[in-house]
Amino acid sequence: MEYGSFDDIELPIGTVTETNPAHGLAYRRYSSDKVIEFHSRMIAVIRTNAPGKWITHNFIPKEDLGVDPYALGAELDIASYDNYPLGRADMAFSDAPPEVASRYMRTGHPDFASFYHDTSRSFSGGDYWVMEQQPGPVNWAPHNPRPAPGMVRLWSWEAFAHGASCVSYFRWRQVPFAQEQMHAGLRRPDNTNASAWPEIEELKAELDSLGINGFTKTRSSVAVITDVQALWITNIQQQGAGYNFTKLEFTYYSTLRRLGIDVDFISKDSVFDGYALVIAPCLPIIDDEFVTKCARSDAHIIFGPRSGSKTNEFSIPAKLGPGSLQSLLPIKILSVETLRPACPVPLHWNEGIYEATCWCEEIEAGEGVDTIAAYDDGSPAIVCNGQVTYVGTVTDEAFLKQFFQDTCETVGIPTHELPDDMRLCQRGELNFAFNYSKNAQMAPAPQSAEFLIGRRMVGGHDLSVWRCPETALSNNP
Amino acid sequence: MEYGSFDDIELPIGTVTETNPAHGLAYRRYSSDKVIEFHSRMIAVIRTNAPGKWITHNFIPKEDLGVDPYALGAELDIASYDNYPLGRADMAFSDAPPEVASRYMRTGHPDFASFYHDTSRSFSGGDYWVMEQQPGPVNWAPHNPRPAPGMVRLWSWEAFAHGASCVSYFRWRQVPFAQEQMHAGLRRPDNTNASAWPEIEELKAELDSLGINGFTKTRSSVAVITDVQALWITNIQQQGAGYNFTKLEFTYYSTLRRLGIDVDFISKDSVFDGYALVIAPCLPIIDDEFVTKCARSDAHIIFGPRSGSKTNEFSIPAKLGPGSLQSLLPIKILSVETLRPACPVPLHWNEGIYEATCWCEEIEAGEGVDTIAAYDDGSPAIVCNGQVTYVGTVTDEAFLKQFFQDTCETVGIPTHELPDDMRLCQRGELNFAFNYSKNAQMAPAPQSAEFLIGRRMVGGHDLSVWRCPETALSNNP
Amino acid sequence: MEYGSFDDIELPIGTVTETNPAHGLAYRRYSSDKVIEFHSRMIAVIRTNAPGKWITHNFIPKEDLGVDPYALGAELDIASYDNYPLGRADMAFSDAPPEVASRYMRTGHPDFASFYHDTSRSFSGGDYWVMEQQPGPVNWAPHNPRPAPGMVRLWSWEAFAHGASCVSYFRWRQVPFAQEQMHAGLRRPDNTNASAWPEIEELKAELDSLGINGFTKTRSSVAVITDVQALWITNIQQQGAGYNFTKLEFTYYSTLRRLGIDVDFISKDSVFDGYALVIAPCLPIIDDEFVTKCARSDAHIIFGPRSGSKTNEFSIPAKLGPGSLQSLLPIKILSVETLRPACPVPLHWNEGIYEATCWCEEIEAGEGVDTIAAYDDGSPAIVCNGQVTYVGTVTDEAFLKQFFQDTCETVGIPTHELPDDMRLCQRGELNFAFNYSKNAQMAPAPQSAEFLIGRRMVGGHDLSVWRCPETALSNNP
Repeated sequence: MEYGSFDDIELPIGTVTETNPAHGLAYRRYSSDKVIEFHSRMIAVIRTNAPGKWITHNFIPKEDLGVDPYALGAELDIASYDNYPLGRADMAFSDAPPEVASRYMRTGHPDFASFYHDTSRSFSGGDYWVMEQQPGPVNWAPHNPRPAPGMVRLWSWEAFAHGASCVSYFRWRQVPFAQEQMHAGLRRPDNTNASAWPEIEELKAELDSLGINGFTKTRSSVAVITDVQALWITNIQQQGAGYNFTKLEFTYYSTLRRLGIDVDFISKDSVFDGYALVIAPCLPIIDDEFVTKCARSDAHIIFGPRSGSKTNEFSIPAKLGPGSLQSLLPIKILSVETLRPACPVPLHWNEGIYEATCWCEEIEAGEGVDTIAAYDDGSPAIVCNGQVTYVGTVTDEAFLKQFFQDTCETVGIPTHELPDDMRLCQRGELNFAFNYSKNAQMAPAPQSAEFLIGRRMVGGHDLSVWRCPETALSNNP
Repeated sequence: MEYGSFDDIELPIGTVTETNPAHGLAYRRYSSDKVIEFHSRMIAVIRTNAPGKWITHNFIPKEDLGVDPYALGAELDIASYDNYPLGRADMAFSDAPPEVASRYMRTGHPDFASFYHDTSRSFSGGDYWVMEQQPGPVNWAPHNPRPAPGMVRLWSWEAFAHGASCVSYFRWRQVPFAQEQMHAGLRRPDNTNASAWPEIEELKAELDSLGINGFTKTRSSVAVITDVQALWITNIQQQGAGYNFTKLEFTYYSTLRRLGIDVDFISKDSVFDGYALVIAPCLPIIDDEFVTKCARSDAHIIFGPRSGSKTNEFSIPAKLGPGSLQSLLPIKILSVETLRPACPVPLHWNEGIYEATCWCEEIEAGEGVDTIAAYDDGSPAIVCNGQVTYVGTVTDEAFLKQFFQDTCETVGIPTHELPDDMRLCQRGELNFAFNYSKNAQMAPAPQSAEFLIGRRMVGGHDLSVWRCPETALSNNP
Repeated sequence: MEYGSFDDIELPIGTVTETNPAHGLAYRRYSSDKVIEFHSRMIAVIRTNAPGKWITHNFIPKEDLGVDPYALGAELDIASYDNYPLGRADMAFSDAPPEVASRYMRTGHPDFASFYHDTSRSFSGGDYWVMEQQPGPVNWAPHNPRPAPGMVRLWSWEAFAHGASCVSYFRWRQVPFAQEQMHAGLRRPDNTNASAWPEIEELKAELDSLGINGFTKTRSSVAVITDVQALWITNIQQQGAGYNFTKLEFTYYSTLRRLGIDVDFISKDSVFDGYALVIAPCLPIIDDEFVTKCARSDAHIIFGPRSGSKTNEFSIPAKLGPGSLQSLLPIKILSVETLRPACPVPLHWNEGIYEATCWCEEIEAGEGVDTIAAYDDGSPAIVCNGQVTYVGTVTDEAFLKQFFQDTCETVGIPTHELPDDMRLCQRGELNFAFNYSKNAQMAPAPQSAEFLIGRRMVGGHDLSVWRCPETALSNNP
């Protein structure tokens, strides 16, 4: 595993057992760079020959990204993405019991679409579109149910609520031939209006009445740092079969959303200004510059497990994890164990017993470090030093929700007790409540709310919109 | 996907996502034609050089047939098939709970063997054989139990009851070497009689006493249309992971058999004369000629979902499904959804609530069309116009049994309440009851029945045969 | 499948269905021979150029051995093996319910390590080492938990108790880079002592105090015959998907261990002298020489199913199974069935009803043969003639434990009622009790026992050692 020249380096495949993880990471960086390089040349050609045109791609989220989306998005005018809540739900719940699968089969999970709205919005740092919005049953998932009546309007409004300036449906007319003949359109193959048509007419009238036009940059009080290198590193070295970067990131996001909090995704190079809370669910490579930024920030910062665990060349830091972060938080990660997800161990916090699973670090806490939560033997699982909290394990959602709620209270971010399957969102001075449930549920709107669409009791598969700038849901700067 | 000449066409593999379904269908038609063409040349050689000999193959049923069996059977003197009930049961119940798997592990399912007896009989339009009958434990299934005592005789009699002129056992003597050394024969490797021997001696005496000799064409009052192109189309475009052509066809067949009904399989080119009821569980391609035949027939005709849904070149018909069938039944299939099998939706019929699952069509019913069963929102799931019924979904078996029973009553086909795991069959004026249960059960023979083998109370793993021409079980023409 | 010359023979792959099993067996013999041949040449080179050095390999147990370990071990000075109880448990219990998986996730199963201690000890007929002992969480299993405190000492002592002269830990220091960076060592990447360090210091002091130094050949009263050709034959011709040679062998071994019995593994070429009981869980090829050895032995001999079922060229013997063994035990195996493991059939023995599953032979018992246990229809499942017992099926563990206990009583081998997850072992005049449970449990030591380590009540994840030569646990010669 020593190289005399660049020519000695082969692809990280075909070795007797696994390949060197550093080789795997270098390969992913290199191939991402090459894609970006080619992409830049294509963009230059277009800008030269078609000046004034917008350039975009429809990002299709997946669990093994080959390219850094921030680098790709940097040169685009807008990012866009393809929103297929039902196909995504069918695949996400493929092993779920029938009651869970059927609960979301006609609506999708209430955090699936917005997770990608919020990530896509961050890629080009400005406007974003939904390039393909599912208007009916599609053809490519293992099972392809029809949306519940009202959901096409709800999904579309959700995109606008999260800041989009355009929602485009795929496709205008269902094509009667070839591979996509079973993919619904706004019109049927015989050119009659398909079932989504009246919902979109209603949406159009509502958009006009509210004067929604173009992009509005939402500004949330909580930022979640996402990082493609973290994905690469944990895919290359999973260490425990239950460890899943995207699932962990999604769980953190979904828990915040269940508290009524608007979330921005940011890259690790972003500034933290304006965020009261910054969360890095997993950030293995941390350099001194990043630590300096953390130290200078007023935000409270939460790091998930594996943060700071690797050098830039995929080794364990000489002073052990969390590496450079030790200057802010004097701890050492002495060892790591991984557990079968179904075999958790107790996590003690605030008189309660929760669950730690999948990934459990052995933490040696230095001077001044407080133990927030502990394992059965009293050893620290979560520690804190001033503005920085380090979570050394993957916890259950019950813990995470209470922990985030307490943290938000500490740093002054309002949270809400939401009914199941209701979510909130704020675009400018407009407040939205989305009800993924089939039953009507009450939105936590203030008394002074002026309802523009719907009312306080939000119908099943419906939404409400109200204005009340003085009592905004999030305390944006 | 445009071709300049035949030479441009490649195999339907190696594309970025899925291949064009029309290409896949054309490929299957072409390769089936080529096999038939080669087969015809071989037959011509044999007929020239061995005049007067019978030519047959042992058809081995499987779920992805590469060749149209009707085209293959057309030039054969007889079709034959290999009957291995236990290996088939082991594979069919591989995911079943132990109580189901063990219930049939020594007998096979009561409709497995007859399903292939009845299909094989139709391939060459005349005589058929069982070329290989399992005489004991075999070697090729994941698990290879021994038949319950009596089952080799029962399976053999079942073949004769369904019309066969010959049952041949594989093999005479268990070979002590090579790949099939664990495959039982009529004799053991040391040339002693294996356990099936006395059962076959008993069978031989019974055949002689009843004068069974040669083929008798049974004539059933119900015909089921089977079609290899339907299999190809639904395999190419499954659309829902729970959709399985063979399983649907088998469920329709098995439900009829549980009502004591004799079934003929026919191709879509067959005449309907003599059948009071014709059922097409799935027939995507329907042309005008076929519709004319339906219109001229006296039979009641039931179409399952997807019938008429495709043109001959694998597109959605210009006027939507069921295409040409619209002249008989003015409906339009506006859209299709597919559901996870474990997540059914309610199906309302005759004051009862049943289940629709896997495949649910949105039906627009034209003038004069009656809704027979409906979804929760009242939209039609099953519709009827005169002699034609269209079932737009995959239902549960409880619905199907009651629905077929009612339909048979309407068109004058007698049905029977049978004990579980008992089946009936009629060959000429002989009536058979086969008892797959280990417990003795009562056969629904008329009072006047003259028992030739066994008696009204049929022993476990045993059969009874009676004669009563005037009260035949089915009302054959 | 006839060959004109050696050059006609190809590899046993690429045939239309399965390959000829005799070809598969010949191929495995040939490739094993070739490895041994090359191995012998390497050893000759080393012995010539490095006289006086020990030569060993670390055997890594796996379920499809490509080489006969006895032939490989014959020329080594010592055999050694790599002991990773937690990774092994994680894989062995991958489909187990969480309560079973979590029970053993920090300890491994109490018979996993010793199974390989006892087999490894037999390969070179003398000393053996543990070349790699797991000292903490590793990196290669699907999940990699940390050992419970005390287990590294317990595992190490277990190796010495089973006769090892050396236990070597892998690795000295956790390496911070490359593929094994997450594999614990005795020291951490920063060169501090890892958690196992004080356990090994304690172990070292105990070894010194007891004067353990070098190998001690244990001598057990029960021998289990293991045979790589039996593994090859049953892998080539599994016949039932539930049949697993290693699982059957392990079940026999584990049941004996739960009775407190020390076990030697031997090859079929070993002498039986000194063993009161010899057990062959599966020995398909038996020649006359072996039968003569059995006849001359004083030991009681138990054969498991499939024993004597094949000739040396993988055919069924002319006089049926168990072939040459018929001169000792006049029975014939008339046929075999295999069952789904979850679908057992009743096994009647001594007024009790147990379970037969996976593999059930039809036995014709000749004169003088006693039926010990029978199927529902009274036909023999287990038979006996004098010193030889033949078990024609795979039984449940409840039967096996009682059956082995009765047999041991008959032949004068003392057994013990052990608490769950406690095991005993004897090395010379030292007696060991290992407690894999987290709870303290009582060791069945005699009143006169002189405790050298621990005491009668053995702590959780702890061990006790006592001396009492006059009441040794096993009646060694």
